[in-house]
This record gives sequence, C-alpha cells and structure tokens, in this order.
Amino acid sequence: MLEELKEKVFKANLDLVKHHLVLFTWGNVSGIDREKGLVVIKPSGVNYDTMKASDMVVVDLATGKVVEGDLNPSSDTPTHLVLYRHFPEIGGIVHTHSTYATAWAQAGKDIPNIGTTHADYFHDAIPCTADMTKDQMDEYEYNTGIVILNRFKKDHINYVHTPGVLVKNHGPFTWGKDPDEAVYHAVVGEQVAKMAFISFSVNPNTTMNPLLIEKHFSRKHGPHAYYGQKKK
Amino acid sequence: MLEELKEKVFKANLDLVKHHLVLFTWGNVSGIDREKGLVVIKPSGVNYDTMKASDMVVVDLATGKVVEGDLNPSSDTPTHLVLYRHFPEIGGIVHTHSTYATAWAQAGKDIPNIGTTHADYFHDAIPCTADMTKDQMDEYEYNTGIVILNRFKKDHINYVHTPGVLVKNHGPFTWGKDPDEAVYHAVVGEQVAKMAFISFSVNPNTTMNPLLIEKHFSRKHGPHAYYGQKKK
Amino acid sequence: MLEELKEKVFKANLDLVKHHLVLFTWGNVSGIDREKGLVVIKPSGVNYDTMKASDMVVVDLATGKVVEGDLNPSSDTPTHLVLYRHFPEIGGIVHTHSTYATAWAQAGKDIPNIGTTHADYFHDAIPCTADMTKDQMDEYEYNTGIVILNRFKKDHINYVHTPGVLVKNHGPFTWGKDPDEAVYHAVVGEQVAKMAFISFSVNPNTTMNPLLIEKHFSRKHGPHAYYGQKKK
Amino acid sequence: MLEELKEKVFKANLDLVKHHLVLFTWGNVSGIDREKGLVVIKPSGVNYDTMKASDMVVVDLATGKVVEGDLNPSSDTPTHLVLYRHFPEIGGIVHTHSTYATAWAQAGKDIPNIGTTHADYFHDAIPCTADMTKDQMDEYEYNTGIVILNRFKKDHINYVHTPGVLVKNHGPFTWGKDPDEAVYHAVVGEQVAKMAFISFSVNPNTTMNPLLIEKHFSRKHGPHAYYGQKKK
Repeated sequence: MLEELKEKVFKANLDLVKHHLVLFTWGNVSGIDREKGLVVIKPSGVNYDTMKASDMVVVDLATGKVVEGDLNPSSDTPTHLVLYRHFPEIGGIVHTHSTYATAWAQAGKDIPNIGTTHADYFHDAIPCTADMTKDQMDEYEYNTGIVILNRFKKDHINYVHTPGVLVKNHGPFTWGKDPDEAVYHAVVGEQVAKMAFISFSVNPNTTMNPLLIEKHFSRKHGPHAYYGQKKK
Repeated sequence: MLEELKEKVFKANLDLVKHHLVLFTWGNVSGIDREKGLVVIKPSGVNYDTMKASDMVVVDLATGKVVEGDLNPSSDTPTHLVLYRHFPEIGGIVHTHSTYATAWAQAGKDIPNIGTTHADYFHDAIPCTADMTKDQMDEYEYNTGIVILNRFKKDHINYVHTPGVLVKNHGPFTWGKDPDEAVYHAVVGEQVAKMAFISFSVNPNTTMNPLLIEKHFSRKHGPHAYYGQKKK
Repeated sequence: MLEELKEKVFKANLDLVKHHLVLFTWGNVSGIDREKGLVVIKPSGVNYDTMKASDMVVVDLATGKVVEGDLNPSSDTPTHLVLYRHFPEIGGIVHTHSTYATAWAQAGKDIPNIGTTHADYFHDAIPCTADMTKDQMDEYEYNTGIVILNRFKKDHINYVHTPGVLVKNHGPFTWGKDPDEAVYHAVVGEQVAKMAFISFSVNPNTTMNPLLIEKHFSRKHGPHAYYGQKKK
Repeated sequence: MLEELKEKVFKANLDLVKHHLVLFTWGNVSGIDREKGLVVIKPSGVNYDTMKASDMVVVDLATGKVVEGDLNPSSDTPTHLVLYRHFPEIGGIVHTHSTYATAWAQAGKDIPNIGTTHADYFHDAIPCTADMTKDQMDEYEYNTGIVILNRFKKDHINYVHTPGVLVKNHGPFTWGKDPDEAVYHAVVGEQVAKMAFISFSVNPNTTMNPLLIEKHFSRKHGPHAYYGQKKK
C-alpha cells in the first residue's frame, strides 16, 4: 500500500541526516496521497540507522487513525494532519530540531528577510508562533498545528510563498509540494537562520530593500521565473 | 571480572569521540554494578585510539580503592564516586570538556530551559555549581562531587529529572540509568548549550512558558509518556 | 571549442563544493578567453553531482549571447560580463552564498581589514555595495555588476589588490587571474569573514595598524614579494 | 642529515591539517637539534598534499642561513629562531592562522584564563603582543619574535608554563618540548579561544578563581602532578 510514497518519505527522512538537520531521532518527514486521503509518516523514536521504508506508518487524513503499520506514528502526527487539512497545496512536511532554526524558535523571534538566499525561497520573514494557552496544552500536537495556522491567518502570510514556520520554544516546520521539497526548504531555513544570526551580530539594525525581495522571489517563482533550466 | 560492564563502559567512552564531545583524552565514562558495589571507569590520560575494554579500571564504591586494572583510573574518579553514593538511581556517569557546555560552565551560568529539546530531557535549567572554597581545593575531585550535591540540595533539583550539571569554570557532568544514557544526556546537553548560546545572542531576554516545560517533559517521562514505541 | 577552459571552469566549480562554499546549486565560476572574447560559465541551477565539463556554457563577452551549449548559462552571467569588461586584468570570477561572507553582505557592512590573513590577499576592506535603486531592478544582474563598479570607482579601490566584493543583502563575488585564483580568493574571503565576525564579537573596536597592512600585502605582492618559492 | 627530526617535523606539519588548524599553506612547524644548533622547518608556501619529509629545510640557529634543502624555508623562520635563542627549554614551535585564536589576535586581546581546560596547559592568560613600531616593520619576521619576547618579559610570564602567544592582528605561535607538544598546544589554544569566545558572549564579566588555576595547573605539571599514567 502506497509503496512508492513510503519509499519517498523514507528517503526524505534519511536526507535529514545527510544534511545534518537531526540528532538521534529528532526529526520527521511525511508525505500525502491527496486522492486517497492518506498520509505516510516516520514512526516515533525509531533509529535512522535501522529504519526501513516498510516501517513508515500510513495514517488517515480525516480521522488520524493508523491505517497500516506496526509502529506508532511520529508523536507530531496531529500537527502534520492539521497542516495538510488547511494547506491544500502542500504534499510533504518536515519537522526538525535543527540547530539554528531551533535557536531562533527558542528566541521567540521571526527570522527577518534580510538576504536574497532567504528571498529566493521564503517571501516573508519566517514567522514564529505565539505562546500556547493553558487550554491548548491538552491536545498539544493538534494545537501546535492550530497556532501555526493562526499566525499565517493573522498576518495574511501566503503558505506557498513562505513554506515554513518556527513553533515558539520548539523548532521549525517546513513544507513543499512533495517530501523532497519540504526537506529542501528545511535545509534552506537552517542556513538562513545561521546567516541571520551572524548578520545581526555584526549589525543589529540591518534590513533589506523590499524591492530586492520581490526581484529575487520572482526570479524563481511565478510566470516570469528565469532561474535554472526550462522544464520540458 | 565485570567483563560485560567493562565492554559497555569502553564502548560508551568511544561514543564520546563519535559524537565529537572529546579532544584528545579529555573525557571519561563510568558505570556501576550496584549489587557488587563496584565502579568501572576509563583509565587516566589514555589515548582513545589504542584503548581496549580490558584497560577499564575497577574501583570499590565505598573505599575508592582500585580492585582490578593495571592503569590509574581517571583522575575524576572521586567525583564519580560521590555522585554514585548520593544519587542511588544512576548507573552511568559522563564527564567531558565539550565545547558549548564547557563554555557555559566557564561563563558561570545555568543553562536556562528555553526550549522543548531541553525540556524533553532536563526538567530544569542545567545548573552551574558555586565556586569552591580554599579548603575544598585540597581534595579537589572529591569536593567537585560535593559542590554538585550542594547545588542540587540547595535548589531542590531532582537529579533524575535533570540529569546533568555544569561544574563552574570546568565543564559538564551528566548521568543516566546506564553508561549509554549518560552519554545520550551528554550529547543533548552539548546541543542544548549550543542552541541556548545562539538564542540568547538573538534575544537576550527570551524565556519559555512553564506549562510547555511540563508538557514536553511528561511526553517522554512518567506514567503518561507517549513518545516512541511501547516497550515490550 | 575552448575544451581546456571548460575543463578548468568545471573543476573550479567542483572546488567550491570541496571547500564547503556552496549548498545545492548556489554558486558559479566562470573563466575568460580574452583573445577570443568568450566567457565559459556554469549552467544555471544544475546539480554539482551530475554536472560535466561539457555542460559549461560559452557566452560572447560583448553581446552576452550563448555561442555554444545546450543549457542556460548561470542567471548571474550578466554580472560576470560587466566585471570582465571593466576589470581587464581578471581571468576568472566566482559567486557564492558562502555562510560568513553572505552574512556580512546581509549586514550591509564592509569587512574591515583587521588581520594579516586579510592583508595577505585583500589590500583594503572587502567593500559592500550600495542599495540598488528601483530603476536598477529592471536589469538586475547587469546592474549588480554596475553597483560593484560604482563602489570600486567611488572609493578608488584597486580591483587587482582587493579582488572581491560583497553585494549588499546578497553575497560575495571574487575574482583572480584565472578561475583557480578566483576560487582561492573566495575561500580566503569566507575565512576572513568568519574570523572578523568573531573578532568584533570579542572586541567591537578593534583595528589594525596600516603599516602592518602594507608590510603583509607586499610580502606576497609586487617586486619585493618574498613569500613562497621562486617561480622558475 | 637530521633525518629523524625532519620526519618528526614533517609529521607534525601534517598533524596541523588533521586537526583543522590550517587552510592551504598557512601554518608551519619547526623542531630544533640543540646539540648541533640546527633548526628544521617547513618550506615556504608548499602544498601539504605533495610535501615530503625530504622537503624540510635545515637552518643554522645562530646565523639563520640555510644549511640543507632546495626550497626556501618558511618566511616565518626568523621568528622561530628568535624564540629558540631566547627560550632555551623549547624543542618545537608552531605557527598557524587557526580560526578562533587568530580572531582573538585580530581583536588585540589576551585570552583570559577562565577555565580548567585553559589552566591545564596555559598557566596565565594567552598573551597578545603590542603593536609593532614603524622601525620594527623593516625586519618584520625577526621583530615578530622580539615583540613576543617583550611581552613575556614585561609581564614576567613563564614561557614554559604558558607555552603560546597571540601576535597582534596576525595569529598564534605555540611551542613545547618537541614539535608534537607544540602542535598539541596549538590545538588546545584553538579550543580555548573558541570556548572563551562563547563564554564571554554568554557572560561578558566572567572570571575564574585563581585558586582553581593553581590546582588544575599543578594536577598536570610539577612534582605533585597526578594526571595520566606514571611514566616508566
């Protein structure tokens, strides 16, 4: 069942290790089959060294119930499901505790868009969520999804153009059209977080011209994109 | 004698190298056999490249005397023994000079709990000990254990829930139910120290909602833990 | 056509990866054949793992038109061409988003010359360009070259003695007598940017004696150079 | 001639690469045969990948003349000779541009002794030299040695107990009883510089109890040393 998607999600999980975004088991990637309404996700707390594609867990998008798999799905599964339900254009989600992005999340700060590396992939600042209320603690992982949605709604952030978020005091979630693109955005987010840390140490008041943001974003996105090779 | 524990302690010492926590010979792991009242520890100043499991030294918990082994035990052995005597639930101890945790120890500051990565493994701030008095310098390594105990007593810190400490101007000690868990906590402590350094550079006033600390700690600890796979 | 130069440019592009200056496809090297008036440059957005020497694109210096090659040239090609046209002594150009140099570019600050490592290769501060105007956004890559030229003109900076620049909010360009030297200067620039970040964190007011700059620069450059082995 | 020492110096130079202390050719190690009054040193600007033990250059301690070798000795040779002449107990010297130690040199600041890692190998702060005068620029490398001596004299620093220095705006020199120990001290100095950078970022006012410095230094040095295994 969903063997191809399982293989994709499995490999995307290993890419997190390759890109030095995870320590131990601290990260997870999922992918979705929109037609079947099923999500494939990494099992919880399983070692990357011994993990197999067949260990991936299949979960129902609507109910959150495990449809296939002997292992518990990632404890962050309810967060992934909320995002898939409300962000209809995304096909893959990544969560890590990568060093620099997590440090910004711990700082409780948006990562401002101060460079073209950022603008090439994230149109706006990478937003940081608000504190959770006491009530939200009860269904913690579900409400992690809710505080993400709330932040995007409040500031009218386009989730396709800014494909990532920092959950306050926790760490980053990124997404994309498929699991690979979600991993790509996780790598970019970590690099952008590292460079912004250095930039603000050198110049606490630095900013970027908004015109340059538009220019760089549109080099890679939209009808006038001209970066890379033309798709055949 | 204690061949299995020696092998475990030996491998845990090599794991420090694998996780980039030691330069040269600057680190040591020990393990305890509570029934026999014997501690197995790395020899002092021996190269990790040539070290063998049979080089591990066996020391009596009560007297501190070497019971087996041709080499001197780690010069930090008296510190390990104090901790084993007063922290009855621990089975393994690690000491390193890992970069970021040592830097916080040199700064003389507790590492505040500002993120879920921290809260998943350390309930409270990772505490930093007080300065030693002149008298305490005489039995330096023994008294290193005493200043650790004093800090946990003074602030009513639960050593099982917060399995590590910074010895002021020196470096971290961590512990766990066995040598492997002590190493795991050493790796987490180093990562937490690195991220906190970055977070406070970005936002010197950042804090974490105490509710979130309780939530994350209890996801992995206690009767309602739900992270990972169920133990069979 | 230009097989030797293609091979050189190809290898220089791989050297960026070897020196950890690029993530994904974020970097490009070009080289020029001054006699023929042709520039060889990396194709746009092509993976370094699968790239071949024959993928290099040949572009006409005067017109910017592709003369040979099936792929699109780097989107930064117009910037390279402006530099080749106005800096007649250079034979190779590198652009990267390397972490520390890019962070200084994002900070909008020149990297001051505060050490002999810097002075050995860059006589002056590594300059940062001004913000682009709205009009300059239209031909963005061409005008990236123009803002570089403007900064060197305004401050009478010798482009041979200071073979690199930071494009504000974007990243570094470096050059040299051939593609290899341009890569060498990219590596030096990144290291100099990293050390300057640390130095200014330790001492925000540090400076270097101008006499020492002259001394070190002239050890490696000009008629009285005495570093290294005599060329035969 | 001096084949054994050449081999030692050659290997010590490669150890600089292994410990990530050098980029390109930016480092050198020398060793001395005190009986013969001859110094063996790395050639200037030669690639570490192709360098052979037989490329090491033999220089006369008294005159500085090359006694054997086809290549130019390191341009820093006059600095090494001054140190060998005035520090009679040293047998090996290292110079690098290692990242963190060089950054402190660029900051023009001593590295304060704030941790036991530092105190284990360097009794005092790692001192930074004064600016050179205009006259001293003429015989630059010779006078680099002189400003080092001046700093040790002015503050009555024991060069055996504090086996290293930062040359202002340049980088570290370390030494030891032989080339290997000089390399060891270069590695320690770099690690100590990195940790101090982090510590002062976390707490700009941190200090260490002088009693602890004495305690740790004497654990590894002098008649009452008890770290490591007894020498047979």
